[in-house]
Amino acid sequence: MNSTPVLSAAFAWPVRVYWEDTDAGGIVFYANYLKFFERARTEWLRGRGVEQRRLREENGGIFVVSEAQLRYHRSARLDDELIVTAQPIEIGRASMTIQQQALLKNGTDTTLLCEATVRVGWINAVSHQPARIPSTLLDALR
Amino acid sequence: MNSTPVLSAAFAWPVRVYWEDTDAGGIVFYANYLKFFERARTEWLRGRGVEQRRLREENGGIFVVSEAQLRYHRSARLDDELIVTAQPIEIGRASMTIQQQALLKNGTDTTLLCEATVRVGWINAVSHQPARIPSTLLDALR
Amino acid sequence: MNSTPVLSAAFAWPVRVYWEDTDAGGIVFYANYLKFFERARTEWLRGRGVEQRRLREENGGIFVVSEAQLRYHRSARLDDELIVTAQPIEIGRASMTIQQQALLKNGTDTTLLCEATVRVGWINAVSHQPARIPSTLLDALR
Amino acid sequence: MNSTPVLSAAFAWPVRVYWEDTDAGGIVFYANYLKFFERARTEWLRGRGVEQRRLREENGGIFVVSEAQLRYHRSARLDDELIVTAQPIEIGRASMTIQQQALLKNGTDTTLLCEATVRVGWINAVSHQPARIPSTLLDALR
Repeated sequence: MNSTPVLSAAFAWPVRVYWEDTDAGGIVFYANYLKFFERARTEWLRGRGVEQRRLREENGGIFVVSEAQLRYHRSARLDDELIVTAQPIEIGRASMTIQQQALLKNGTDTTLLCEATVRVGWINAVSHQPARIPSTLLDALR
Repeated sequence: MNSTPVLSAAFAWPVRVYWEDTDAGGIVFYANYLKFFERARTEWLRGRGVEQRRLREENGGIFVVSEAQLRYHRSARLDDELIVTAQPIEIGRASMTIQQQALLKNGTDTTLLCEATVRVGWINAVSHQPARIPSTLLDALR
Repeated sequence: MNSTPVLSAAFAWPVRVYWEDTDAGGIVFYANYLKFFERARTEWLRGRGVEQRRLREENGGIFVVSEAQLRYHRSARLDDELIVTAQPIEIGRASMTIQQQALLKNGTDTTLLCEATVRVGWINAVSHQPARIPSTLLDALR
Repeated sequence: MNSTPVLSAAFAWPVRVYWEDTDAGGIVFYANYLKFFERARTEWLRGRGVEQRRLREENGGIFVVSEAQLRYHRSARLDDELIVTAQPIEIGRASMTIQQQALLKNGTDTTLLCEATVRVGWINAVSHQPARIPSTLLDALR
């Protein structure tokens, strides 16, 4: 068996909306949610002790996104405070799938803005060929 | 019937990869394909006589992305020349769905890098409420 | 006299370097320091009780940058922790000048990466004409 | 003598303003002019036969910006057509200085939006140490 279901609670990371994130529609530009989701994945990894620059220096590999499904429900605007989550739903030998949400903070309440399912593969940083995720990394993630 | 199948050939737009598009992996950052896809949609509209700033001034509405499915096959790198396509596959009264590809130019050949299905809705630019696409706009697109 | 020298200690804001900030040179893309500096200016304003979206709704104006001088000394890389400062050196009736630095955190030490002097003017958000900074805003900043 | 005054006419490159370039002020975000200026420098180099990815593979070096002075005069908006120029004013052994403008096209007329003086140095791509610009590159640029 190459993959393991993961059922831990979602990792959550705060993101503030700045001018750089917005567009002339007055809302966060749709591509920028992918930045927010990447930040949350990076911080989830960091929380597991995984720093990606060091990972590459030691293992010669990097994560790359192979698939993303995005649904945009509502818009975020300048100064909004978001919570961005990352919850792995499958961790395999060469890839993992992560469920993510961007939520608007309203006091103690939240409103779902955007949700994504993101599949991330592991590749050799030089050849860009798919490779097996290092087992020490897998151990940290599971 | 609210929607019309569209079977015209894909609109194609050239995109060059600059430093701004790349990341420390040496490849185009995954979110930036959504910028490329947006440029191709904008130029497809412009080719139909639709300028979005004027559209908003005259009709009070803007397009927003409601869904996107992305598959990343290969990576683009600095200086690469891409062809980015936009082909509407359904145009309804309040939204449309567009099939898009980012292809690497290799002389006269191309290699598929990334493909997307993007659903775009029409909203009131002030209230952000969904609205019907103006009929003059629909006429231009069909 | 339209301007006041400001001699308070610099406001400091933490910034983490993510994939989105880097380029194929393996370092933070030079334009992105202007994003970091904008975040620090925004958080300095917020610390003074000034939220720019509300400011615009209430006063009809926005800040825009009119001049920037930038010196890049060293490069930041993925996963680096930066401290970004904002120190107003002159606050006038229609503009203010802010001194800014991006510093790399090395344990308890810091290394200067980039420094900027940024002049920011106040304009009417609709006409884009220069205007006087509202006096309630000036009071909050001085 | 390590530097040569350069007095050729400015290189000009067209840039279209897309949603990605704008912010909630309805105008091009100030950092994005540095993207436009970089594109014009890259295309000026390409016009001289210099592809930066190949340059790095063959010479092990990259250009990095060491200084930039920016003055913002007027704002660009969605759908605007810009002309972005690059004119080297000094080319030395380890760095060069380039004068740049972003102009709005108004029919056959232009309006100055933003101007910059950008100093670019040559560094070893691995060690990030300053180095002498390869002489074959200098020959192409002078």
